[in-house]
Amino acid sequence: MKASIIGGGSIGLLFAAYLLRSGMDVSLIVRRKEQKGAIQNDGLKLKSRNGQFTYKPDVHILSEVESIEADILIVAVKSYQVADIKSEILTKFEQTKSILFVQNGMHHIKFLPDLKNHSVYLGIVEHGSLKESDTCIRHTGVGQTKIAPYIDGHSGINWEQYSTDSFSFVHHHDWYEMLSKKLHINSVINPLTAILGVENGRLLDHPDWIDLMKKLSAESCRVLHINENDAWEDLLTVCKNTSLNKSSMLRDIESRRKTEIEAINGYLVELASQDQIELSNHEFVYKMIKGMEM
Amino acid sequence: MKASIIGGGSIGLLFAAYLLRSGMDVSLIVRRKEQKGAIQNDGLKLKSRNGQFTYKPDVHILSEVESIEADILIVAVKSYQVADIKSEILTKFEQTKSILFVQNGMHHIKFLPDLKNHSVYLGIVEHGSLKESDTCIRHTGVGQTKIAPYIDGHSGINWEQYSTDSFSFVHHHDWYEMLSKKLHINSVINPLTAILGVENGRLLDHPDWIDLMKKLSAESCRVLHINENDAWEDLLTVCKNTSLNKSSMLRDIESRRKTEIEAINGYLVELASQDQIELSNHEFVYKMIKGMEM
Repeated sequence: MKASIIGGGSIGLLFAAYLLRSGMDVSLIVRRKEQKGAIQNDGLKLKSRNGQFTYKPDVHILSEVESIEADILIVAVKSYQVADIKSEILTKFEQTKSILFVQNGMHHIKFLPDLKNHSVYLGIVEHGSLKESDTCIRHTGVGQTKIAPYIDGHSGINWEQYSTDSFSFVHHHDWYEMLSKKLHINSVINPLTAILGVENGRLLDHPDWIDLMKKLSAESCRVLHINENDAWEDLLTVCKNTSLNKSSMLRDIESRRKTEIEAINGYLVELASQDQIELSNHEFVYKMIKGMEM
Repeated sequence: MKASIIGGGSIGLLFAAYLLRSGMDVSLIVRRKEQKGAIQNDGLKLKSRNGQFTYKPDVHILSEVESIEADILIVAVKSYQVADIKSEILTKFEQTKSILFVQNGMHHIKFLPDLKNHSVYLGIVEHGSLKESDTCIRHTGVGQTKIAPYIDGHSGINWEQYSTDSFSFVHHHDWYEMLSKKLHINSVINPLTAILGVENGRLLDHPDWIDLMKKLSAESCRVLHINENDAWEDLLTVCKNTSLNKSSMLRDIESRRKTEIEAINGYLVELASQDQIELSNHEFVYKMIKGMEM
């Protein structure tokens, strides 16, 4: 089985390492020549609870390859980069039957209808991972990858067969439910932790901050049409289970990188405005983060 | 002329120094024995654009004095401390005819009706000042102190006669207009700069942050019944004129002190709730700051 992975960030490197570990033939496609060279020289190092491992994937630069043969393509770039590489995916992976997108938020969904010659899957990654360098990924929290088909009826891949002990795949039948629940959680935890500069669990330290979570949560549920009580319980569970983690948005702000605010809170504000609904609290955190990104 | 000043913070020390400079007999009343001792030993140092000056005020601890003779009392404690010292003011300054309150916000106003045997004035202090130590105050920006009578018709003090070149007093006829305009400005600049950790002028750097200012400003104007366009122009002017300054709320957060959020945004939220109006943006920043104070 041949897998291609686009994206040299923490999720792309984590997938590359674990799919190599499970015996797949992996080509990793990154954007920068420095990262390509570094991985070709030093290999890709995985630090996990089971020890340290070094793998040697094929590495390419997307703009330099004409076409890549692969059975599966995993698109692990940031949500705001999906639009930019969509046409390259269409031409360079014409022969690749299955494509898995693992972005946060739901902003990238609008680019998917074009991919009608492929079996498209959507995934959410519940692992903790930290990119320590261009060649080293630390698996900080073992979770799972949930995968749902985007279009019903296309030839199914049994993703679960690629599960390993620390890196498992779980099928989900309803991509909308799966992504909207994740989006709900991200839309509350990510902006608040990034603005306040605190780890996830700290949000529960103060009743006023819990109130802010409730306000954002209620607005998210309203526009995503999900049950408010269930969503609130899920949110508290994630906050407690990841209490010492920094959210990806906080890490992006600390590292002066662009955040995924557009795909998360920006998406909700836009979705609501189509229904003439104003999400005042999401709009507020969205604008705060937009300014912090500069 | 004898003046008593309650409060050993930046405003209290600034008033003490300048009133001593203008030749008044000043007693300064502080809370901590360390500060009393330090000022008695070292004097009170004023650093201004005209040089450094050291003065020797009488210093007292409020709880240790039975009564103080003074023609004027200037209450320069934080807004949230006014309620705590109100009864001491009533007993210890029974003979003092005129009392000036110089707090931010309008939260302290509700304690004033009791003071019916005194001429009560409200002031807003537009100076920049930085307390460098218990005994040293730096006058960072020359502005003025605006003063309005709280109750019409009481025997007037001509405050302007105490003006000096760098420390002037200006009469204002309408305390509500004066305080509500200042409150409007504080209610926007203070929480945003404190949450975002930036100097006042940085709020104008990004269109999304200007939008946040507009949202807060509109809500403030609605509940304070002041003209939105005029208030917005005033806000921009203050933001530009104090662009390199840190707001008092940002300095309080940085120094892990309690902020004046209750007297500013908390007051507006409460005022609005009496009219069944929800100020969602003020409520949001209020709750953020409340949690940041812990």
